[in-house]
Formats: sequence, C-alpha cells, structure tokens
Amino acid sequence: MANSRSGDSMASRIVRVLDTFGPDRTVQTASDIARRAGLPSSSAHRIVAELAASGLLERDDDGRVRLGMRLWELALRGSTALRLRQAALPHMARVQERIREHTQLAVLERDEALFLERLSHPDAGANITRIAGRLPLHASSSGLVLLAFADPAVRERVLAEPLRAVSRETVTDAAVLRELLAGIRRSGFVVAPGSVETVSTGVAVPLRDRGEVVAALSVVLPREVAPDAALAALRDAAGAIEAELRARR
Amino acid sequence: MANSRSGDSMASRIVRVLDTFGPDRTVQTASDIARRAGLPSSSAHRIVAELAASGLLERDDDGRVRLGMRLWELALRGSTALRLRQAALPHMARVQERIREHTQLAVLERDEALFLERLSHPDAGANITRIAGRLPLHASSSGLVLLAFADPAVRERVLAEPLRAVSRETVTDAAVLRELLAGIRRSGFVVAPGSVETVSTGVAVPLRDRGEVVAALSVVLPREVAPDAALAALRDAAGAIEAELRARR
Repeated sequence: MANSRSGDSMASRIVRVLDTFGPDRTVQTASDIARRAGLPSSSAHRIVAELAASGLLERDDDGRVRLGMRLWELALRGSTALRLRQAALPHMARVQERIREHTQLAVLERDEALFLERLSHPDAGANITRIAGRLPLHASSSGLVLLAFADPAVRERVLAEPLRAVSRETVTDAAVLRELLAGIRRSGFVVAPGSVETVSTGVAVPLRDRGEVVAALSVVLPREVAPDAALAALRDAAGAIEAELRARR
Repeated sequence: MANSRSGDSMASRIVRVLDTFGPDRTVQTASDIARRAGLPSSSAHRIVAELAASGLLERDDDGRVRLGMRLWELALRGSTALRLRQAALPHMARVQERIREHTQLAVLERDEALFLERLSHPDAGANITRIAGRLPLHASSSGLVLLAFADPAVRERVLAEPLRAVSRETVTDAAVLRELLAGIRRSGFVVAPGSVETVSTGVAVPLRDRGEVVAALSVVLPREVAPDAALAALRDAAGAIEAELRARR
C-alpha cells in the first residue's frame, strides 16, 4: 500500500521531496521538485498535492510550493533539537556578548555535524555554517569534537572513508586525524585553524547529558584572533548548559 | 497507492503520527502512537517503521520512538519560519536586553497564532507561550494583531466561531472584538491585560514584509508593569526587522 512499484516507501519519497528545498531554494514548482527528487512527474505531483493538503507544504498564489508552517511546527514541538537548543540559547547569547563573533551548537547526525543554532555578531568574520546546515565531522571544529567522543564504531566508519579536504588545511590523513581525536578526548577541546576556511579558526568543546556527549558548542574566530578567551567562554557556557539539562530532567 | 482503505492519504496519516508528539511527550512506543493517532496498530507500526528507516523518527535503545534530527533538518532548512526568525532574532535579543521579560514572534497558521520564537529572561514573570506552541487569535496579544490585519475572510470565519475564554478577561463577544480589532488597525499595536493569564499583560505590534503583515512581535509583562517601554522597544525592533527583510530580498 505504502510502497511504489520501485520499492521505496512513501516516507522515503516524502523525504526526497522535502530534501529538494534548501536555504537558496525555498519556493519551487511541482515539476522542479519531480526533477530534483528524481521522481516520476505524476508521482511527484500526487505527493506534493497530498503534502499541501495536510499543510506540510504550502502553495503561493502562483501555485508554486514552499515548506509549510505546519511541517515546522510538527518537527519542532516535541523534538530533542528544540529541547537542547532551548537549554543552550541563553548561554550561547552570553558567549556572543563576550566574544562577538559566531557561536554555534551542533549534533552528530548520520556521520556529519548538523548545526542546530548559530548566533552571529553583525561585524563578525567569515563563517559558512548555517542553521540546519551540515559540515564534515573531520573538518569543522564542532565535528572534530563530536567525532572524538562518538561511538567507536561511528569513528572507525568515518576514518575508513576517504576524508575530503574542505580547505588546504583540513586534516585528511586518517592516522593524523586519529591522534588529533585522541588529543581532543584528553584535553576536552579543539582549536582548529583553517580546517574549514583559511581565514578562520574554529574552537569547540563537548556538551554532555547523562554522561554522554550529545552536542558540540563552538566559536568561529578570525584566524588572527587568539582562541583563549573563546575557549574560556565556551567552557563556562558548556558547564552552565549541562547544569540546565540536569535541572530539566 | 498512497491511500488507505479509509481514504485518508499517507501524508495525512504521517501528520497524525507526528502530531502525537509534543513538549511533554517526546518519546513514545509505536503502540502509544497508534492509539493516540487513532490508527490501526498494524498501520501505525508500518508507518513508524518507514519514518524511522528514513530518519524522520528515531528509535532509542529500548525501541521507543522520538522525532528525528533529520525531520528537524528538512523542516527548517528551506523554511519561511527560519528566514523570518533569523531576521528577527538579533532584534528580539535587543528587546530582551531592554525589557528583560519575554519576547515572542508569532505567525497566523490555520486560524491560530503559532509561535516561532520565544526569548525569556530567567527572572521574568508568567508566560504560557512555547516555541512551536499555539494560542487562540482572539486571546493572545500576538493573535489579536494577526487577526486585526488578517485577510477579511479569515477574520470573519474566526469571528463567526464561538470565542473561547482563555482567562476571565478574554474578550469573547464578537462585536466587542470587532471594535478592538479596528482599534488595532488604527493604532498599530495592542495592549492586552489579562486576556491569556490574569497576572500578565501582552503587548504586540505587526511585522510587515512586502506591505503585508506576516507576523506579530510581542512582549509579555507582569500585569503591574506599564507597557510604554515595551511598546517603544517593540516598535524599534519591528522597524529594524522590516529593514532586514527588505535587505535580504
């Protein structure tokens, strides 16, 4: 009933439809969606019509389609992402007041760093991170912290794959990366200059809940800025967020 | 193919499944979901399995189910909600610095006020609003602003329905409400003491994009606090957010 002739489930086809939307593509026609999702036109049109009828997609006056507020509501209302972000936000704001660059919260999702929140000062330096955007674990400072404290099976899987260079300075040698990750586990932080963009340095620390690392908190600084103040602010914030998570249980 | 024997679409059944989750119910068994969604057990188990396989739901070690980070990512990445919230957040933070209570951003969604963001001072007074939560249009200050500037057809539909009293002071008389809304259109703001909770006053202003009211910005104050400073802060913020939305086009 829920499966198409090609064998993929209705849920997976809905994911393919939703996945065609992004920060630079917020409005599309149903035909665009069919092409980008790799779905037969009739099938895509039917799924779009169903999703629009249920409010997960919305149509504008020209019949073009965008993500629905109802989808946003259902995805957030009971989500772990919202709980974590709500506990973190006031303390991220305090890091912002002290450092005045970019402060970010990321989780490990399907072998990548997924960013839940980003606060940026209007005059801050370069930073390619976006809310609901992703970066490779081995390149971003948040990702390095998440990878260092990940389940060993996840870590070995990531280390076994080819490690793509995001910048000239990304560590792409598995043996070197393995040592870097061991160092992060010992020190409890990472300073990663130039590993995503040559002009900036990522500084990140882990966030724990019930003894497990559940997220990374990071600051992106212009390359020429010393990381000490950012690291101190991140450690203060991580301690306060962990206390907040304990208090909410 | 995508329809069950009862005639509701797969998308609408997925909505029913997702709708069983909420801030106080973040983890459930598939059987709980079946019961709460009013779906046959076999059907609910199959939908949950499909949604988990595609990452829209996640299973914990005990096999219980929660909303997936992947759902959060897909719902946010290309959403109007995120765009609006990103433009508004720095200016909401400035309102918070000045007023130190609760600052909120809401949109009109299916005849209710849906809250996209809430910032709260640790020492702030009572406030029942939640991110991704809803309040009736005729009761909350945000809702009153959204209703005042809504499409006349929406306004007439809401006014024709029974108006539920959220507190003793909620305006539930359609004729009185109609005058209140006309006043909001003239003045460009509302001060609503006690209409949601007796102990607090909501103050709200509209946010415009391309000449249309797209959201309401509000502050919730303890009842004894005069609204003047909050109103001034909201008006400054609304102007700045509208400029930001123009600049982003």
